[in-house]
Amino acid sequence: MERDGVLKFPVVSVNDAQTKHFFDNRYGTGQSTIDGIIRATNVLLAGRTLVVCGYGWCGKGVALRARGLGSRVIVTEVDPIRALEAAMDGFMVMPLSDAAPMGDVFITVTGNSGIIRREHFVRMKDGAMVCNSGHFDVEVDLPALQAEAEGTPAEVRNHVHEYRMKNGRRIYVIGEGRLVNLAAAEGHPPSVMDMSFATQALATEYCIKNRGKLSAAVHAVPREVEDFVARHKLASMGITIDELTVSQKKYMSGWEQGT
Amino acid sequence: MERDGVLKFPVVSVNDAQTKHFFDNRYGTGQSTIDGIIRATNVLLAGRTLVVCGYGWCGKGVALRARGLGSRVIVTEVDPIRALEAAMDGFMVMPLSDAAPMGDVFITVTGNSGIIRREHFVRMKDGAMVCNSGHFDVEVDLPALQAEAEGTPAEVRNHVHEYRMKNGRRIYVIGEGRLVNLAAAEGHPPSVMDMSFATQALATEYCIKNRGKLSAAVHAVPREVEDFVARHKLASMGITIDELTVSQKKYMSGWEQGT
Amino acid sequence: MERDGVLKFPVVSVNDAQTKHFFDNRYGTGQSTIDGIIRATNVLLAGRTLVVCGYGWCGKGVALRARGLGSRVIVTEVDPIRALEAAMDGFMVMPLSDAAPMGDVFITVTGNSGIIRREHFVRMKDGAMVCNSGHFDVEVDLPALQAEAEGTPAEVRNHVHEYRMKNGRRIYVIGEGRLVNLAAAEGHPPSVMDMSFATQALATEYCIKNRGKLSAAVHAVPREVEDFVARHKLASMGITIDELTVSQKKYMSGWEQGT
Amino acid sequence: MERDGVLKFPVVSVNDAQTKHFFDNRYGTGQSTIDGIIRATNVLLAGRTLVVCGYGWCGKGVALRARGLGSRVIVTEVDPIRALEAAMDGFMVMPLSDAAPMGDVFITVTGNSGIIRREHFVRMKDGAMVCNSGHFDVEVDLPALQAEAEGTPAEVRNHVHEYRMKNGRRIYVIGEGRLVNLAAAEGHPPSVMDMSFATQALATEYCIKNRGKLSAAVHAVPREVEDFVARHKLASMGITIDELTVSQKKYMSGWEQGT
Repeated sequence: MERDGVLKFPVVSVNDAQTKHFFDNRYGTGQSTIDGIIRATNVLLAGRTLVVCGYGWCGKGVALRARGLGSRVIVTEVDPIRALEAAMDGFMVMPLSDAAPMGDVFITVTGNSGIIRREHFVRMKDGAMVCNSGHFDVEVDLPALQAEAEGTPAEVRNHVHEYRMKNGRRIYVIGEGRLVNLAAAEGHPPSVMDMSFATQALATEYCIKNRGKLSAAVHAVPREVEDFVARHKLASMGITIDELTVSQKKYMSGWEQGT
Repeated sequence: MERDGVLKFPVVSVNDAQTKHFFDNRYGTGQSTIDGIIRATNVLLAGRTLVVCGYGWCGKGVALRARGLGSRVIVTEVDPIRALEAAMDGFMVMPLSDAAPMGDVFITVTGNSGIIRREHFVRMKDGAMVCNSGHFDVEVDLPALQAEAEGTPAEVRNHVHEYRMKNGRRIYVIGEGRLVNLAAAEGHPPSVMDMSFATQALATEYCIKNRGKLSAAVHAVPREVEDFVARHKLASMGITIDELTVSQKKYMSGWEQGT
Repeated sequence: MERDGVLKFPVVSVNDAQTKHFFDNRYGTGQSTIDGIIRATNVLLAGRTLVVCGYGWCGKGVALRARGLGSRVIVTEVDPIRALEAAMDGFMVMPLSDAAPMGDVFITVTGNSGIIRREHFVRMKDGAMVCNSGHFDVEVDLPALQAEAEGTPAEVRNHVHEYRMKNGRRIYVIGEGRLVNLAAAEGHPPSVMDMSFATQALATEYCIKNRGKLSAAVHAVPREVEDFVARHKLASMGITIDELTVSQKKYMSGWEQGT
Repeated sequence: MERDGVLKFPVVSVNDAQTKHFFDNRYGTGQSTIDGIIRATNVLLAGRTLVVCGYGWCGKGVALRARGLGSRVIVTEVDPIRALEAAMDGFMVMPLSDAAPMGDVFITVTGNSGIIRREHFVRMKDGAMVCNSGHFDVEVDLPALQAEAEGTPAEVRNHVHEYRMKNGRRIYVIGEGRLVNLAAAEGHPPSVMDMSFATQALATEYCIKNRGKLSAAVHAVPREVEDFVARHKLASMGITIDELTVSQKKYMSGWEQGT
């Protein structure tokens, strides 16, 4: 909207704050997505192949936690830098059409739409499970799945619908393609949302204090707000850290010394 | 009972089978214990300190999964070899009395009794959570906790009781000290119990087929049964493996060649 | 220099490129630092406590690899957001003075100076090892160590100097506080430097092609250069990835649809 | 030899001691094998595919460390239980002929012979690296490789021989198929060999003290020896552990109470 010149008021981009996306998106989504899948299906993740579509902060969190629970993890991406990062992090990286017949569980976390499509569903194994934790319910193309299925999907467990495919296989959709951590679990734990809410509250305070001074554009959360939130969070965890010495501050701001 | 000469019939020790304890105890208990804790408390494990009492197969599984979800993990043990193994696996190892003030969540998986006692409860942080996944409800000494608490514990969430300590702190007991994966989750996933049940069924068949031939002692599950179960499990996962060549079989059974 | 108005020509900040710091700093420094320590000392990392000073990209890499080799890892930081990230990643976080008596190996990767100082050396265990992989040889305060030591340090292995402290303990300095991966190993592997060099070459080409058009300021590496390098790297690894569909491109650039 | 009735004196099987194989084979071989590969080739392990042939204690150690350094790891096995364990630990498991075209580095740790054979070499990628850390130089079938190669292999780096295959590809053999940690690195670190040597020394003392009392068979290392070694090792690491209480000892030896 800023780019199109139709943004009419200042916006502070809390979702881009480090105290938001580093923590809420990665650690929160990571755990709660896996939690949603396990609550809905009671599946053992050890030994299974998980396909994570998207390697942004949320995807990183989900891939990391899936590995931490013993799964083999395949990452799919459209961004070459993120794809490379996933490969260097030890994950298998390939197009989704190649991953489709290998996966036991598929999770979309891209923020885009139409990620898992007809050509993927028809290649999946009997019993494959599909869910979304990325944005809203447009990442898994359910109409395309329904078009390949016979009859109406049956809810075989709470939040789990079984689609009987024309090719004879069964595909299980968790939480109807909505955010699986909200649909089948309790969403993010309070101990990570506290930071997001604190950042939102303080960013709002910042807007009010700077009323009339901020342009009608997207602004970053001020560094002071981020540090304030992080320091209080550390204190609540009983963690203290080092402080820069006077000579270190001088060293960091200078450019006279160097390699 | 065998040692005391009071065992009156043959016993096949299915719990000691590799297809049981390697998989059910480690991977099953690992995931389902964490699952029980998260369902009961919705706590974020990343950044928290978990204390795992006992580093047998179950303890290994719980410690591994807790780390996989981002926790710092402390292991307590009485067996020096297991303690050393935990240390070499990268975990902190210390007596429980030292770990008591550091832990956010305590999990007993020892198979013994009276693990978390009065002297530990009084040193714990405000808000510490305590549960058991090891044997049955004798690992966490709840009477000792009650003796240090004021009033009756309140159930503040399903399966979570709050004890208000005389020292002003609150301790939360999950699942009343019973197996937390059964109390607060669904127990082990079917995909690991299948192996345990198959081993039990085949061990029973083995007993019947060998009726009258087995002494009144504790017998191991025959290797053939274990291999049979493992091969079928691999097949169900779509995994094939190598076979020994003729010359390899010869090499392995010989002792003429050597380093 | 830009801030002080003394930068007289355009600069492209290759070190801030994602294809540089994501990969070279993290994966390159991570492995080669550990490699330098092992080559110099032949120490088993499993079961040992490593203290990593600094949790930037290099510090993240070193901490991750140290954990991957079985060490308990303590992170020290001055930045609260990074400290929090380290804690959420499962590392112990504390001031260096608290970590000093716990560490077996200390590694500085801060880019600052005077990190390990007199007050830290005197608290270290007998046999503690100290090295730097961060910037250049000002992170470990060797003059301060020498002032606490008796006599001249002896080179007890190649690249390892033993300081005999007045308190009777011995401290081992690897690579004289210079970059340990260069001093005691072979620096970064070619398979990560290829990306850094490609980015440098293409950034230089960009400067030449845009001669006269770039202001005397610090410029970011163009996104096209980064994508080009990443795509070629993926191809060299035999990895192919998905492409955005037409409707996905449209979805991503729009703001009409939303949660 | 015991089985063939040709063992003429008592043998104490130190290699089967927990204080030996848990630690030396797993943690020692794990680190030193990787160390040998990196010293010989300076290859970055992050993002590469390692194929570990064998999932015994040594193979477990190598696979764990390779993953810890960012590699994708494929395990090959002939034993279904070990294969299943590898799969549940999150590794890819497949026959070696399937893994041959996928691997960047191959490591044999089986204790058997003729593991990597002609049919595997011809399927490998250009630039594949092959080494052994398992037994002695019979695991990698070098004569078969030579038969597929043209000319004499050239030593392109210390301990690295390049075989130019008739199919146009190059295969690199590290350490001539001998134990790579001895050929190209320093063998196991002292901090793990100390335990193996202590166990050997104490097992020898045990033999002498029991002269004439031990049958001409293979005996296990006495539990007391193992505990003694483990306790001293823990003490040297500054680690103390819990002791069983009187009531716990009673509980453990009883069978009256139960689930």
